[in-house]
Amino acid sequence: MKVEIWSDVVCPWCYVGKRQFEAALAQFEHAASVQVVWRSFELDRTASRSPAVQGQYAQRLAEKYGCSLEQAQGMIDNMTGVAASVGLDFRFDLARPGNTFDAHRLLHLALARGVQDPLKERLDRATFSEGLRVSDHDELTALAVEVGLDEVEVREVLAGDRYTRDVLADEERAAELDITGVPFFVVDGRFGISGAQTPDRLLRALDRAWSTRTVLEMVPADGAPGCEGDACAV
Amino acid sequence: MKVEIWSDVVCPWCYVGKRQFEAALAQFEHAASVQVVWRSFELDRTASRSPAVQGQYAQRLAEKYGCSLEQAQGMIDNMTGVAASVGLDFRFDLARPGNTFDAHRLLHLALARGVQDPLKERLDRATFSEGLRVSDHDELTALAVEVGLDEVEVREVLAGDRYTRDVLADEERAAELDITGVPFFVVDGRFGISGAQTPDRLLRALDRAWSTRTVLEMVPADGAPGCEGDACAV
Repeated sequence: MKVEIWSDVVCPWCYVGKRQFEAALAQFEHAASVQVVWRSFELDRTASRSPAVQGQYAQRLAEKYGCSLEQAQGMIDNMTGVAASVGLDFRFDLARPGNTFDAHRLLHLALARGVQDPLKERLDRATFSEGLRVSDHDELTALAVEVGLDEVEVREVLAGDRYTRDVLADEERAAELDITGVPFFVVDGRFGISGAQTPDRLLRALDRAWSTRTVLEMVPADGAPGCEGDACAV
Repeated sequence: MKVEIWSDVVCPWCYVGKRQFEAALAQFEHAASVQVVWRSFELDRTASRSPAVQGQYAQRLAEKYGCSLEQAQGMIDNMTGVAASVGLDFRFDLARPGNTFDAHRLLHLALARGVQDPLKERLDRATFSEGLRVSDHDELTALAVEVGLDEVEVREVLAGDRYTRDVLADEERAAELDITGVPFFVVDGRFGISGAQTPDRLLRALDRAWSTRTVLEMVPADGAPGCEGDACAV
């Protein structure tokens, strides 16, 4: 059973939601049958590739959501507290978001190489606990190599345009699904869950999807009864 | 949108169904957005890897379905006629089915290399028009190379056990879906169609799946209204 999670690597609630999903999956009876795929979603496609200044997160939030600096700081304090409650050390004083398109391309390379989840984890941590520059090719390369990707291949991907189509396809699908915020979970292609949710709620969604997953709607035959299609039987 | 087709390469109705599906797809407005995946299904897991004798198809059918030789010949004549009507030249006088496990492993290699449909077509034709031996590693290699696979890699796969898990996973999923005969089409993971069906019927299923494909069932929030999960918005 596939769980697709649209997410960005500069999205604090996505990182919190990742931990909550992991907690849900740890309790899910059929976890071994679950395939998790991280789908690309850029919160800001216009973000610069140059590293943002550190320590101005409240100012950026205030501008983005049109609120006061105090309100923005309140959001940051709230996120930091929730993150701590799930074991994450958020350092908004260090964070410097930037353009994430290349990070998403690498996540597609990592999917093909079987290390997507470790790379997603590493990129989220780099952004929110370490203040690394998520647009920088050298830093991206170092992080990708850390999780087992081949340095030569990573540099080739970053220098070229491989996986561009995959990132755009994820974003196109997100638009079709009316996804405007992340994280967004799609379980078995059928159930949608928006935002960072409690493990309990995610677990119930997994249970429900599992219990109904083999149900196919059969397309009825044309014409008269007995006019079924021909098949070869075991 | 994904269309998965469970099928065997020694299944005459599967080959007919392939043509019918191709005719449906040619008329489908969103064909460019359709990804076709051929799923493994062995009609006879106990089939020998040694080549069957040619020209005894009626006898084999009679044994399998417990009918008379005349009835079996009637089935063959019917299949040959239907095949001709969709442009296929069925030569049951040449056909010699055998174990297809390795052919299915190669189809998974071909999926990874982007040439699955050409290989599926080539294997079906080899069986039903040319009487080639679908269990024979040399003949399989020649057919795989014809559609563009690398000979060294093909021989490595055949000599080892790569893609065994993929074949078994397809068959396990077929069992979960109660698939006991092929071809069996699953459109967008939601609609099931059993047997070789008319292009019109397949087209209607594609249309219906497409028109409903973006509909996700949203899992409602826990607790009080307003207690939605937290998300980062664009």
